[in-house]
Amino acid sequence: MNAALGTVKACVFDTFGTVVDWRSSVIAEATRWGDAKGLNLNWVEFADRWRMGYTPAMDRVRKGEVPWTSLDDLQRIILEGLLENYRIEGLSEEEKIDWAHVWRRLKPWPDSVEGLTRLKNKFIISPMSNGNVALMVHLAKFAALPWDVILGSDLVRHYKPDREMYMSAPLYLDLKPEEVMMCAAHVGDLQAARSYGLRTCFIYRPNEYGGGPAGVPDTAKSGDFDVVSLSIVDLAKQLGA
Amino acid sequence: MNAALGTVKACVFDTFGTVVDWRSSVIAEATRWGDAKGLNLNWVEFADRWRMGYTPAMDRVRKGEVPWTSLDDLQRIILEGLLENYRIEGLSEEEKIDWAHVWRRLKPWPDSVEGLTRLKNKFIISPMSNGNVALMVHLAKFAALPWDVILGSDLVRHYKPDREMYMSAPLYLDLKPEEVMMCAAHVGDLQAARSYGLRTCFIYRPNEYGGGPAGVPDTAKSGDFDVVSLSIVDLAKQLGA
Repeated sequence: MNAALGTVKACVFDTFGTVVDWRSSVIAEATRWGDAKGLNLNWVEFADRWRMGYTPAMDRVRKGEVPWTSLDDLQRIILEGLLENYRIEGLSEEEKIDWAHVWRRLKPWPDSVEGLTRLKNKFIISPMSNGNVALMVHLAKFAALPWDVILGSDLVRHYKPDREMYMSAPLYLDLKPEEVMMCAAHVGDLQAARSYGLRTCFIYRPNEYGGGPAGVPDTAKSGDFDVVSLSIVDLAKQLGA
Repeated sequence: MNAALGTVKACVFDTFGTVVDWRSSVIAEATRWGDAKGLNLNWVEFADRWRMGYTPAMDRVRKGEVPWTSLDDLQRIILEGLLENYRIEGLSEEEKIDWAHVWRRLKPWPDSVEGLTRLKNKFIISPMSNGNVALMVHLAKFAALPWDVILGSDLVRHYKPDREMYMSAPLYLDLKPEEVMMCAAHVGDLQAARSYGLRTCFIYRPNEYGGGPAGVPDTAKSGDFDVVSLSIVDLAKQLGA
């Protein structure tokens, strides 16, 4: 193990894409909505477009163009736009809430629960996601993610890559920045965390975007970050957990 | 089951006294400190005095006489006073931190882990304690408390019985007040929670104070609160969990 990692006491995880497979989960559930509603749409495209609305929506909050809005509420706003674009009409308020909450019901990657469970024996584990606490709690219960604590973005009312979000881990866990390791499949997320003094672990998730237009999987080579791993189980092994 | 409880989605718990047995834990560890340091003191009295410093210290924060101070830091301040009173000298900074952190190392009541584990299958479970997030995370790991989320007092920078602390549960969990049940061994805590619209559950903990001067155990009779229970396992049974 890299000697510089001996001081790490908490591992915090980007969640959408790194811990859970948002794309196949949203496609599967949206396909079921379509079947139930008799709607014959391209639900793969629908899911990708939903994901593509996510970063611009957060950026409007980050730039102060709109007041603080939780990720649950942003997903509802993005959904409203999709319903209009796809001319899906007649959903009840309850159905709209349920659809917007699909992001609370995403399946984990096959290694996530085992990897987190192993890491939990040795480290404090938390999401470090742009999700709000309620979203992340429901997601954890749905996907059986054994978090010790939920550091939601609504606690500090900032979205990554804002400094305040990353620093919420040392702040609330009473740790130094170098005692916290940010774990993510996204290089930009790790570069931002590193700039604030956190340790970093890259986790390779080649299937996050499924070849669709919402993104291209990042790659990293040994030495780019404190740990470069192929899965959360691999990370646990590398940290001796 | 009481029909009014059918809407409860989260059970939040007072922790010191309700979930963990602070007194015998502090006495046991303090006795070990004494043995290691060759100090022949009345560690039972020491533990009770420490506990008796707790509410006045929080009240100074609640009244604005001192700026926000976390419970970890208040415990350190109270410890400094005890060390002076008992003329305990020569502790290193690391030893003082470790002693102050005894409140992160308290054993659960015998029914707590089983009861919380059962409740977790059906409800969101969280502490609703005056402890800060770091203190509560370490305590949960020490005592194997399976919380879904940690609603620490430092998230809202208020101590119970301030409204802001109780309302942090509906706020961060995206629930209505009546969907949250406050569970505690202390009647005053429950009365405050009820005044803000939360459901309430009394848990009888006759041994919290061990007959010492730090307090007298509260009692409640059927009907005083939404649930009156003899343990967390009893609460789980009453809620069908």
